[in-house]
Amino acid sequence: MSLSDLSPDALAALHSEQTTAYAALVDRGLKLDLTRGKPAPAQLDLSNALLTLPGAGEYTAADGTDCRNYGGGQGLPEIREIFAELLNVPVAQLVAGDNASLGVMHDTLVFSLLKGTVDSAGPWVKEPITFLCPVPGYDRHFALCEQFGITMEPVALGPDGPDLEAIRSRVADDPSVRGIWIVPTYANPTGSVYTEEVTRELVSMPTAAPDFRIFWDNAYAVHHLTDAEHPALDVLGLAAEAGNPNRVFVFASTSKITFAGAGVSFFAGSPANVSWYLQHLGKRTIGPDKVNHLRHARYLGSADGVRELMRKHRAIIEPKFAQVETILQSRLGDHEVATWTRPEGGYFISLDVPDGCATRVVALAKEAGIAMTAAGAAFPYGSDPRDRNIRIAPTFPSPDDVAAAIEGLCTCVLLASAEQQQAAG
Amino acid sequence: MSLSDLSPDALAALHSEQTTAYAALVDRGLKLDLTRGKPAPAQLDLSNALLTLPGAGEYTAADGTDCRNYGGGQGLPEIREIFAELLNVPVAQLVAGDNASLGVMHDTLVFSLLKGTVDSAGPWVKEPITFLCPVPGYDRHFALCEQFGITMEPVALGPDGPDLEAIRSRVADDPSVRGIWIVPTYANPTGSVYTEEVTRELVSMPTAAPDFRIFWDNAYAVHHLTDAEHPALDVLGLAAEAGNPNRVFVFASTSKITFAGAGVSFFAGSPANVSWYLQHLGKRTIGPDKVNHLRHARYLGSADGVRELMRKHRAIIEPKFAQVETILQSRLGDHEVATWTRPEGGYFISLDVPDGCATRVVALAKEAGIAMTAAGAAFPYGSDPRDRNIRIAPTFPSPDDVAAAIEGLCTCVLLASAEQQQAAG
Repeated sequence: MSLSDLSPDALAALHSEQTTAYAALVDRGLKLDLTRGKPAPAQLDLSNALLTLPGAGEYTAADGTDCRNYGGGQGLPEIREIFAELLNVPVAQLVAGDNASLGVMHDTLVFSLLKGTVDSAGPWVKEPITFLCPVPGYDRHFALCEQFGITMEPVALGPDGPDLEAIRSRVADDPSVRGIWIVPTYANPTGSVYTEEVTRELVSMPTAAPDFRIFWDNAYAVHHLTDAEHPALDVLGLAAEAGNPNRVFVFASTSKITFAGAGVSFFAGSPANVSWYLQHLGKRTIGPDKVNHLRHARYLGSADGVRELMRKHRAIIEPKFAQVETILQSRLGDHEVATWTRPEGGYFISLDVPDGCATRVVALAKEAGIAMTAAGAAFPYGSDPRDRNIRIAPTFPSPDDVAAAIEGLCTCVLLASAEQQQAAG
Repeated sequence: MSLSDLSPDALAALHSEQTTAYAALVDRGLKLDLTRGKPAPAQLDLSNALLTLPGAGEYTAADGTDCRNYGGGQGLPEIREIFAELLNVPVAQLVAGDNASLGVMHDTLVFSLLKGTVDSAGPWVKEPITFLCPVPGYDRHFALCEQFGITMEPVALGPDGPDLEAIRSRVADDPSVRGIWIVPTYANPTGSVYTEEVTRELVSMPTAAPDFRIFWDNAYAVHHLTDAEHPALDVLGLAAEAGNPNRVFVFASTSKITFAGAGVSFFAGSPANVSWYLQHLGKRTIGPDKVNHLRHARYLGSADGVRELMRKHRAIIEPKFAQVETILQSRLGDHEVATWTRPEGGYFISLDVPDGCATRVVALAKEAGIAMTAAGAAFPYGSDPRDRNIRIAPTFPSPDDVAAAIEGLCTCVLLASAEQQQAAG
């Protein structure tokens, strides 16, 4: 039953009950953190073999390269072969880099700003630039745009992809629209999975800017939480087929496969985009950390090795997601005060509370020792126009901590909702 | 005796003799490469312990950080402590990064271009920017400027530092002069060592631009070839003392200490510069590869551990430098056709042949299967106005190959010089 349907007395009772519950919650003096999508120590333990790899005397790649010395800008073939299969891109069009795909995205944006893309008339920095941002989305994508003065426009994101009509009209009309941020598989934070149909639309639609780019961040390509195991689409092939081979920049990393921050990042694109990227990257570095490439190739072995590892990750984190679902359902399900996603992969659950309540909920949670990502973080400029979205990141804490945090969060949601309803009534 | 003092007959005899020698050289079908400053396999072998480090179950830093997870933008304290001592900077003002100091320099330049420094009125990219370039210098520094449309002006570099009078006048008069590239210790390729006096001048001199920056690339700070072991100057302290604390950006890496391309890079600066750098870096990455920091800290142990390792490097490469000196002296010393440096550290010997001959010498060498760095590479825009400078990188090849390459190179120098003298006569 919706809170607005409650009688004044019933509402007052709920408010009083949640006020008491919240006081008890604060008294517990919790210190819990659900802010970031970090792997849990148990997940990191899965890859501890990396700590002694590539192994004594092991520094020679399959092609004879001494991985300890300079060079090899595109990265070691053996690690590229494994991830070309998983990301569904040709190995010749895949670049393996250092430890952070965010850095690859940053650099790709910097190269576009300072040099222009292969289809640009000049550096992007010389003109006003706009990016479309499916929301809720990944705060670090938006922070990059904000950093470089790129105007961001939100576009609503549904379970299968963003509002195509809105995108179609903006890219067709306005040549300042040069990019869109996409997390195609198990999107952060909604878990959305872009369908092939949506993807075909995105790579085909006419754009006023000849250098319009899709920043396709396939961060969770292999991070399944169910047996559905949505595979990576052949986005580069679809773009080429649509006559727009250069439209897509693909990004990925092993950050949530092996070690977060000590893994391998990837860039993929059309042959022209790969040449462009490597040419500019070649001014920045003499080569990536090939010893780490070799270490990862030896450890992972093959695409199937990665798939097997990801099933072990799933075994650790799926129960945490299930726990969140169970608690949200049992505490909030009857009150019609919230909706949330049930992702089939990735690292997040996206929770929508009543409009205007998210900031209050996060503040209440903080006061009770439960750190949540700031309300609005999943929107450009940190501003959720409806102030309703909260990102839940359940992977890092222990199962007990996840349960305690979500129980506490539910109390905060109910209290904030009752407060709002009372104020309105 | 100078070639210009030879009688026409003597000159003809020399020319004929070198022509014959060159033909014999070409017949040998050599395939030697002295192009890049790469460590030799024997040097890389010194650090093979890294291939199994940090070791089974070893992922926890001294402060309890789990190095396998995200975070820690400034880098692991234990690796920063070791290099703060060696680079003579406060540990709080040192940032440890990923595998390439060239990347750190690139990013520092990008942040300045797109955001401006802490003393800038705005982004550098909005105005014409000029960098002063002591020459001969490092080609990859110059390539960064060229990449971003920064005008380069050469300044003569001597054994103790650059032409201060020229620098003083340019920075005092022209606010577009925003930077200078400096390799203070065992400069690439001359081996110049900046004295404290020169350094004090550079950090003190009045500049028209409030945001003038010294890009202080201390790439060879610990790479001694003699017992002189010139220590790193306290350049940040000197700059602060002179009232210009923010003038200096310090760069360094372990590329030629441990593994080239799989080591740790460093940035240092004033507290304001470090905050600035970390703030912008924080948009690019969630943190550096801390497992690699831990791996290096465990392997190197201490600053003395690094010093000991560098003495082992010296034992491998000093004989190669001695061999180059011996052959240059014996083949060219009597002819007054060339001068060259006798570096006390670093990776290079800088050879000056008669004006107008360097391109010809490098072409002759290439024809004979000896790859040298392109003539002019050590100058902005790849253009040596006197066409006389050739960079010799003797570290990578085996001693036999170094000897064969330098013998061949001397033949090319004598032949090109005799050709030129005959043409002039």
